[in-house]
Amino acid sequence: MAIRLAENSYGSSRIHLLRVSRQQGRHDVREIALSIRFEGDFEAAHAQGDNRKILPPDTMKNTVYALARQHSIEPLEDFGLHLIEHFLTYNAQVTRVVIDASESIWTHLPHGGKPHPSAFSRSGDQERTSFLSGTRERTHVRAGIENLLVLKTSNSAFEDFKKDPYTTLQEETDRILSVIINANWLYTEEDVEFGPLWHAVRKTLLEAFAEHHSHSLQHTLYAMGDAILGNFENISEIHLSLPSKHFHLADLAPLGMDNPGTVFLPADEPHAIIAATLKKS
Amino acid sequence: MAIRLAENSYGSSRIHLLRVSRQQGRHDVREIALSIRFEGDFEAAHAQGDNRKILPPDTMKNTVYALARQHSIEPLEDFGLHLIEHFLTYNAQVTRVVIDASESIWTHLPHGGKPHPSAFSRSGDQERTSFLSGTRERTHVRAGIENLLVLKTSNSAFEDFKKDPYTTLQEETDRILSVIINANWLYTEEDVEFGPLWHAVRKTLLEAFAEHHSHSLQHTLYAMGDAILGNFENISEIHLSLPSKHFHLADLAPLGMDNPGTVFLPADEPHAIIAATLKKS
Amino acid sequence: MAIRLAENSYGSSRIHLLRVSRQQGRHDVREIALSIRFEGDFEAAHAQGDNRKILPPDTMKNTVYALARQHSIEPLEDFGLHLIEHFLTYNAQVTRVVIDASESIWTHLPHGGKPHPSAFSRSGDQERTSFLSGTRERTHVRAGIENLLVLKTSNSAFEDFKKDPYTTLQEETDRILSVIINANWLYTEEDVEFGPLWHAVRKTLLEAFAEHHSHSLQHTLYAMGDAILGNFENISEIHLSLPSKHFHLADLAPLGMDNPGTVFLPADEPHAIIAATLKKS
Amino acid sequence: MAIRLAENSYGSSRIHLLRVSRQQGRHDVREIALSIRFEGDFEAAHAQGDNRKILPPDTMKNTVYALARQHSIEPLEDFGLHLIEHFLTYNAQVTRVVIDASESIWTHLPHGGKPHPSAFSRSGDQERTSFLSGTRERTHVRAGIENLLVLKTSNSAFEDFKKDPYTTLQEETDRILSVIINANWLYTEEDVEFGPLWHAVRKTLLEAFAEHHSHSLQHTLYAMGDAILGNFENISEIHLSLPSKHFHLADLAPLGMDNPGTVFLPADEPHAIIAATLKKS
Repeated sequence: MAIRLAENSYGSSRIHLLRVSRQQGRHDVREIALSIRFEGDFEAAHAQGDNRKILPPDTMKNTVYALARQHSIEPLEDFGLHLIEHFLTYNAQVTRVVIDASESIWTHLPHGGKPHPSAFSRSGDQERTSFLSGTRERTHVRAGIENLLVLKTSNSAFEDFKKDPYTTLQEETDRILSVIINANWLYTEEDVEFGPLWHAVRKTLLEAFAEHHSHSLQHTLYAMGDAILGNFENISEIHLSLPSKHFHLADLAPLGMDNPGTVFLPADEPHAIIAATLKKS
Repeated sequence: MAIRLAENSYGSSRIHLLRVSRQQGRHDVREIALSIRFEGDFEAAHAQGDNRKILPPDTMKNTVYALARQHSIEPLEDFGLHLIEHFLTYNAQVTRVVIDASESIWTHLPHGGKPHPSAFSRSGDQERTSFLSGTRERTHVRAGIENLLVLKTSNSAFEDFKKDPYTTLQEETDRILSVIINANWLYTEEDVEFGPLWHAVRKTLLEAFAEHHSHSLQHTLYAMGDAILGNFENISEIHLSLPSKHFHLADLAPLGMDNPGTVFLPADEPHAIIAATLKKS
Repeated sequence: MAIRLAENSYGSSRIHLLRVSRQQGRHDVREIALSIRFEGDFEAAHAQGDNRKILPPDTMKNTVYALARQHSIEPLEDFGLHLIEHFLTYNAQVTRVVIDASESIWTHLPHGGKPHPSAFSRSGDQERTSFLSGTRERTHVRAGIENLLVLKTSNSAFEDFKKDPYTTLQEETDRILSVIINANWLYTEEDVEFGPLWHAVRKTLLEAFAEHHSHSLQHTLYAMGDAILGNFENISEIHLSLPSKHFHLADLAPLGMDNPGTVFLPADEPHAIIAATLKKS
Repeated sequence: MAIRLAENSYGSSRIHLLRVSRQQGRHDVREIALSIRFEGDFEAAHAQGDNRKILPPDTMKNTVYALARQHSIEPLEDFGLHLIEHFLTYNAQVTRVVIDASESIWTHLPHGGKPHPSAFSRSGDQERTSFLSGTRERTHVRAGIENLLVLKTSNSAFEDFKKDPYTTLQEETDRILSVIINANWLYTEEDVEFGPLWHAVRKTLLEAFAEHHSHSLQHTLYAMGDAILGNFENISEIHLSLPSKHFHLADLAPLGMDNPGTVFLPADEPHAIIAATLKKS
């Protein structure tokens, strides 16, 4: 019996930094975390313990620091493309560099009706993400949003579904729909305005969620993806994963009360999961 | 040897609900989680397993649901006071009711320049909290903020501190200062406008943080507490706990570069902790 | 422009239950959590909001409860195969059922040198997992381990690696190596003794980790995979993901002390990541 | 209005280290995390930004590293007492030092029926803790256990409790009882065998939990505390906090099945909380 090394990669995760840019009268800060993985010619490292083709993960980290010292890290996508180019240029043994990046968003505190020049607060869990994958032939640039929790109290139903002997769920004509939006989309080129596009995609996803007359999670997911592919020329594909958060109408009958859509109980588990990719064809 | 039951309490934690109010053309949602604890005459339950004075935690939960069905839960403080009064009225065996409450903040999604009537997103980790403690003699109402992460890139130094043989920290004249603001304050009466006051306290804390010329964490904490006690008649005491997040200036000398306050490395541990209570005297 | 629905699935996550089996004089408990996903003919649900082919996630949950009432859930793999068969039998619209399952491990408390008949404690984070994927043509059964944190204080080096101008890492001849073992392996058939095999694989992985003379993470990963493929006939493939936890030797020179491999500082980020699949060829 | 600085403290949290001791043929590792807080004369630091009495938290960290280089850190309590003595000796401005310490437990991997000399695995969440508080007059030493999850499937009832109009809970004669054991106890002296005592207390708590014929959470808590105070001369007080994990019997009637204590559904929230202190009198 022979053993074969199939897919493999290595790298550094959670390379985390804050970059301050200091203009006269105004500072700006950006906080990012990156994971970098290399694919390439690493058979000898695995099978014989020969490290001559292994650039240490620690060096990947130093490289991120060095480039962040010399260049802006905004937008995330351009900084990531720069890193990929650097690593492919100096590492013949590497065939593919994959970068997952996320940005934690700091905003200037308000001060007398204007942004304070040097004080900031960080907004919650929601993250701007970017997924880059580059070989010597081509590069894929995906941008994304993670952990954006939304909810709607009208225009959501779930009816006429398939039933079997274990089905006890009632048809619902007017339920609460709540999902965590996780989305990422593929750009057709590397030469777009990543910052403004990200904000426009985010706005379009939220509008599609809010305005859709939903028959199901699938139906809403499709409407959100459709809105992006229909409105953005530079995007050829979108992946949406929308775990739902259940809000059950509390049963108050045992307490002698009705409950006309007033008190709901959030449930962590189990929850529905749904994911799909939509493409232009 | 005799054994004595000293301080004891029991209750229910994470009673969690979403309340929807439905006006014509506009819905509103509030999500809260409460912990309720009873202190009282529970010796027999502990020592003999006699449950006749134990109202089940499950009933505390039902009571929260029932009152939330019948009454607004905004502001948190009024809802909590109502619960305390209810439990003390119907439970002679209870001498004190303690409630820790927190609210996760949902905001209307924007839609065509106005708030969407029935779609919402939830803002991060930051929580509005309330701590209530009531006996038949008196009630204490505290309000609070938790998990508000802030950072400033100027006006922060740490110099002239005590040194010993294990001190290696350098004096810093211009460092990054970042803390998680956890604050709670005691109201002098139960009859104030809890909602507007909470927003005003939050604003004052952030301004004090942003504008203070900081010599140390202690110095900034004091300035923040002082701003509250100096500006709010109805507040007699404030407790501040400000764990700091370190942002170390990256040492790029081994990479052949300087680093004039550009690239910082966030560190999770160890971190400085600081807490104090300020009172009007 | 036409839009095409590409890969898609839906289901229920975190279906969580505890099953008690009660023999005379001895109880046993097993706690599992399952995620179930369906792939199939769901175009109409997405594009037209037609739910007639959507079996609700809530029904998946009920089905798990019903089968767990009627059958043993041990081993996890047999229970999962039973669920897959059930869903494919009664759902013509479904082409593939995917189940991710995990078990939290409870052990009898000791009592007078023997296991207590009805009292248990739960062992930490480590989980036994299973990944099943079934169509009407064939089924893949993978078993796994997650979150098994290990460390070795000898027989680990990292030398002769590739260096570039940003490389500052020193060669290490005797370092601490610590990784979180995440592994899953593919069985060649559905008809094996899943329970005993899982324990044997776990033991073999730990021995390979402990005994290997490591030149790098890659080298150790390969040795661990090799040990499994070399020793288990029924396993054709193994995937290993070994995020490493760094333990840096504390630099005590500024405190006037040496540090001969005594005090190490655990670091959460950044950390090295490494993953590979080994196959019999 | 004058403002008064009331209780205040500062320090360093999550000072985290791994200590390796290397005997011929056998290594041992211990991983600890400490929080250290100072109380003392810090009025000027707060009110005037005068740092001359502030020993930096960074120096506390260095001191821990230096002492861990020179001395064993086992048992935790002796190491903590050493730190307290050090800080009080060299810091006249400090009146009290408080240390919260926890140990993550590593055990030798088995190897051919014996412990492997230099390879280890870490056991889950469960932690050994220690709480030390020292002034120039006296020191309190508490030891503890946190996050020890246990469950029993017999000998647990909850009946004859108080009912009100919102009570819907049914009396239960034979339920599952599951709690997270968090305990800490006060030693009467500093000169005991902390290591063996900790293991003996842990064993006694588990036996009391397992063997008790429980009428309620309160009843079981009291029995556990009573077992400690009754069996350990050197312990004068114990605090127990036992958040319970609910396991609801699944209602399978809608699926046409009974459920004779077989399938239970774990619920995260809400959960019952209970805490008490027992003292020798």
